[in-house]
Amino acid sequence: MYKTFFFIIVLTFFLSGLVTAQKDDSVTIRKISNEILTNGTAYENLRYLCKEVGPRLSGSPQAQKAVEATFKMLKDAGADTVYLQPCMVPRWVRGEKEQGFIQLEGGKKYQLHLCALGNSEGTGTKGITAPVIEIKNFSELESLGYAGIKGKIVFYNFPMNPTYVRSFMAYGESGVYRTRGPARAAKYGALGVMVRSLASNLDDYPHTGATLYNDSFPKIPALAISTNDAEWLSSQLKNKMVISAYLRSTSTMLSDVSSFNVVGEIWGSDFPDEFITVGGHLDSWDLAEGAQDDGAGCMQSIEVLRALKALGLRSKRTIRAVMFMNEENGGRGAAKYLEMAKAKNEKHIFALESDAGGFTPRGFGLDMSNEKRIKVMNWKNLFYDYGVYDISAGGGGADIGPLKLIGAALAGLSPDSQRYFDLHHAATDTFEAVSKRELHLGAVNMTALIYLVDKYGL
Amino acid sequence: MYKTFFFIIVLTFFLSGLVTAQKDDSVTIRKISNEILTNGTAYENLRYLCKEVGPRLSGSPQAQKAVEATFKMLKDAGADTVYLQPCMVPRWVRGEKEQGFIQLEGGKKYQLHLCALGNSEGTGTKGITAPVIEIKNFSELESLGYAGIKGKIVFYNFPMNPTYVRSFMAYGESGVYRTRGPARAAKYGALGVMVRSLASNLDDYPHTGATLYNDSFPKIPALAISTNDAEWLSSQLKNKMVISAYLRSTSTMLSDVSSFNVVGEIWGSDFPDEFITVGGHLDSWDLAEGAQDDGAGCMQSIEVLRALKALGLRSKRTIRAVMFMNEENGGRGAAKYLEMAKAKNEKHIFALESDAGGFTPRGFGLDMSNEKRIKVMNWKNLFYDYGVYDISAGGGGADIGPLKLIGAALAGLSPDSQRYFDLHHAATDTFEAVSKRELHLGAVNMTALIYLVDKYGL
Repeated sequence: MYKTFFFIIVLTFFLSGLVTAQKDDSVTIRKISNEILTNGTAYENLRYLCKEVGPRLSGSPQAQKAVEATFKMLKDAGADTVYLQPCMVPRWVRGEKEQGFIQLEGGKKYQLHLCALGNSEGTGTKGITAPVIEIKNFSELESLGYAGIKGKIVFYNFPMNPTYVRSFMAYGESGVYRTRGPARAAKYGALGVMVRSLASNLDDYPHTGATLYNDSFPKIPALAISTNDAEWLSSQLKNKMVISAYLRSTSTMLSDVSSFNVVGEIWGSDFPDEFITVGGHLDSWDLAEGAQDDGAGCMQSIEVLRALKALGLRSKRTIRAVMFMNEENGGRGAAKYLEMAKAKNEKHIFALESDAGGFTPRGFGLDMSNEKRIKVMNWKNLFYDYGVYDISAGGGGADIGPLKLIGAALAGLSPDSQRYFDLHHAATDTFEAVSKRELHLGAVNMTALIYLVDKYGL
Repeated sequence: MYKTFFFIIVLTFFLSGLVTAQKDDSVTIRKISNEILTNGTAYENLRYLCKEVGPRLSGSPQAQKAVEATFKMLKDAGADTVYLQPCMVPRWVRGEKEQGFIQLEGGKKYQLHLCALGNSEGTGTKGITAPVIEIKNFSELESLGYAGIKGKIVFYNFPMNPTYVRSFMAYGESGVYRTRGPARAAKYGALGVMVRSLASNLDDYPHTGATLYNDSFPKIPALAISTNDAEWLSSQLKNKMVISAYLRSTSTMLSDVSSFNVVGEIWGSDFPDEFITVGGHLDSWDLAEGAQDDGAGCMQSIEVLRALKALGLRSKRTIRAVMFMNEENGGRGAAKYLEMAKAKNEKHIFALESDAGGFTPRGFGLDMSNEKRIKVMNWKNLFYDYGVYDISAGGGGADIGPLKLIGAALAGLSPDSQRYFDLHHAATDTFEAVSKRELHLGAVNMTALIYLVDKYGL
C-alpha cells in the first residue's frame, strides 16, 4: 500500500514536470512560429535562388553561383561560421534541345514533348528511328525478351497510381521504369527508351530525373515524354497507327568536376562536439528553377539557424545547416559529408532533411530506434497547432541517409504531397508554385523539432 | 463477479460489432476514395465553370449561365432529380474600371491598384479628391472623431495577422474594416474609404468583398487597394509626402433580379423524407473566376452525388447537392433554401458545406450538439488515411447556417488555409490555382462523411 502510494507520488511529480516542460516548450515554439511567420526570410531567399540563380545542375556554373549565394545567406542568417566542403560531382550535360516525333500511317508526324533523362547518353546528332513497343511493366518486357525488343524503341507507360493518397508511394512504384527501365531494355537489345513522365497530372511538360545504366549493357538513349503524349501514343499504338519514332538527343556525361556542400554552423554552448544537421539539396535539374525540389528545403534549413539566432535561443549542441550538392544525380555531397564526419570522428546525434517540397507541413517521418522514436512522438502535441500531426516511422532522406552509418537518428519533414508530382523535375517547378506561408510553416516545425532535440538530446 | 463477467461479454460483443462496422466502412471509404481519385469529374467540371462561364456575380448573365451549367452537371452526375429554386438576388454592378491615384508633394502622381468593394456606391463620374488619413483600428477612428475625419478619405490599414496559423482567424479579425469600416467612417463625415486588401501576401492585386452600409449614414464610396499599395501609402503618409487621393468608381446597387439555387437530389431508400444537404455557393465575385471561392465547393458537392451513384451506394436518406446563389453579397439563396424547407416542413438532419477553398483537406468543423459531435468524432480514424485528422467543434458555413434553425446538425470542410487568402476575392482566384488531387481528396472526405451520416443517422 505504501509502495503504491509512493509510486503515485513519484508519478505525479514526474508527470507535473513533464507538463511544465511541455508548457515552457509550447511557449518557445509559439515564439519560433511568430518569428518565422512574421520575419522569416526563407521565401525571399528562395526567390533569389530561383530567379537570380535559376536551374543549378551539379557541376554547372549556376550550381557554383548557388554555392556562393547560400554561403552569403547563411552568413546573413547569423551562423557562427560558414564554410565550403569540397566534393567532386558528375557533370552531365543535356546538350541541344531534344527532338522527337512519331511517324504515323498516312504520312503525318506528331511532335513529342520530351527531354533526356538525367545521366543518359544521347542518340548521336543524326538521331535514331525505330518501331515503338509499349511496355506496361517489367514482366511484359521479360516475356517479350530479345526477340520482341531488339531494334525497337521501348515506351514504358506506367502511370502514377492516382489512388495512393501519399503520392510518394506512387512515385516509388512508377519510378523504377525511369531509373531501371532503360538499362533493362538495353539488355534485350532496345535502341532507345521513352518513359512516360513521372507526373500525377496530365499536361505537356516532360519530367526529367536520373536513370541508372548497367555497365553490362549498352547505354542507350533514354528520354521522358509528357503524360499527354504518353496517353496519345498509347492510343495510337492500340489503333496500329504508329510506324516509328524518331528521337534525337545529344546529352552526355563529362568528367567529374569539383563542387561543394555549403555548411553553416551555430556552435553549441554545452556540447559543441555533438552535431545536429538540418539540410536540403542545393542542386536542381537543369529544366527547372528547383523551387520545391529542393530550393525550399535549403531555404528552410537556413531559416532554422536564422530563427534560433534571432530569438537568442542558444543551442547546447552544434547545429549545422547543410546545402548538400548533387542529390539529383550522384549523391556525392552526402557521401562527402559522411566521409568528413567519419574522418573527424564527429558525434552526430540527429539529422533532419526537407526534400519533399515546401508545401504545407503534415508530419515527420522518423528513422531511428524505437526508444528514440517514442521520445520524439511524445512531443507530438507541441506540433499540432502548426499543422504537424503525423509523426511516425519511415523517413529521413537521401542526403542524411548515410549518417545512419555513424549512429545519427534521422527524420524527414513530410509536407502535403498532392501537388508535388505535378511539377517535380519539370519546368513547372518554379518559385510561383511556392506559398510563402506554407514554406515558412514548414520551417517553423523544423525549427521546433531541432530545438527539442537539442534541448532534450536523443 | 457474474455481473462483471456478463458485462465484459456484452462489451466484447459491442466492441467487436463496432470494429466490424468500422472495418466495413473503411472498405467502403477506400472504394469512394479510389473512385473519386481515379474517375472524379469535379476538376474538369471546375475547368468548365471557370473558363467557359467565368466570374458569376449574383444577378449577372454569367450567374445564369452557371445555373444552367451546374443543372447539367448534376444531371450528368446521375441525380434522381435536378431542379431550380427561384430566389430574388441583389444586383450590384461595378461599372467602369475604377481609377485612383495619390497626389504627392513635388507634383508626382502614384496610380493605385484598386477596386470597388462589393455593394458599394461609386464616387460619381467626376470622382472625389480629398486628403487621406490612415487609420489602424477603430479606436483610432473613434478618438479622431468628426473633427479628425470629416471631409477626408479614410485609409484603413489593418494587415492580416501572419502569426495565426489558421488564416481564417486573421481574416475574421481584419475583415471588420472591410465590412464595417466604410459605414463607421461615414458616421464621422468621411468622403470615402480605401481599405487595405484582405490578403495574406504582398502583391498588386486588389481584393474585393462585401461591405455593409448603415442606413443612418451616407453610403460613401469604398474601395480596396492592393497590399503593396497599402504598404507604400503608409510609408508615404509617414513621410508626409501625401497631398491627397483621387478616387473614381461608378459602382452601384440596382434593383433585385430573379435567380436560382440549383438542387440535385438522390432519393433515399428508407427515409426519403429525411434530408442531408451538401453544398457550396455558385456565385462568385466579378473580378475572379471563383475557382477556390467557391467553384471548388460546388463541384465537390456534385462529386459526392456522382461518386455515390457510380459506386451504387444507395442512400437511406435523400441527399441533396445544393449550389447556393448569392453567398457573396446577400445570402438570399441560403434564406430561400431555409424558407422552402420550412414551408414543406422538411426534416433536415445534416448539412455539410465546402466554402473554404478546394485545398488539401485537413478536417471538419462541427456545429451540432455534444452528443452528435461525439458520434461523428468516433468516426475520426476512418478519415485519417485521406488527410482529415482534425474533427472538432466550430464549423458549418454561411449557406447552411440557417438550417440550424430547423434542427440540422452542421459541418464544414476545413481545407488547408495557408494559400487561400493570397487569392480570395482577387483576380488570382483562377482554375490554375487549384490542384486536381487536392480538390478530389476534399470530395473523398465529404462523400465519406455524408455516407456515414446517412448510414448511421445523426
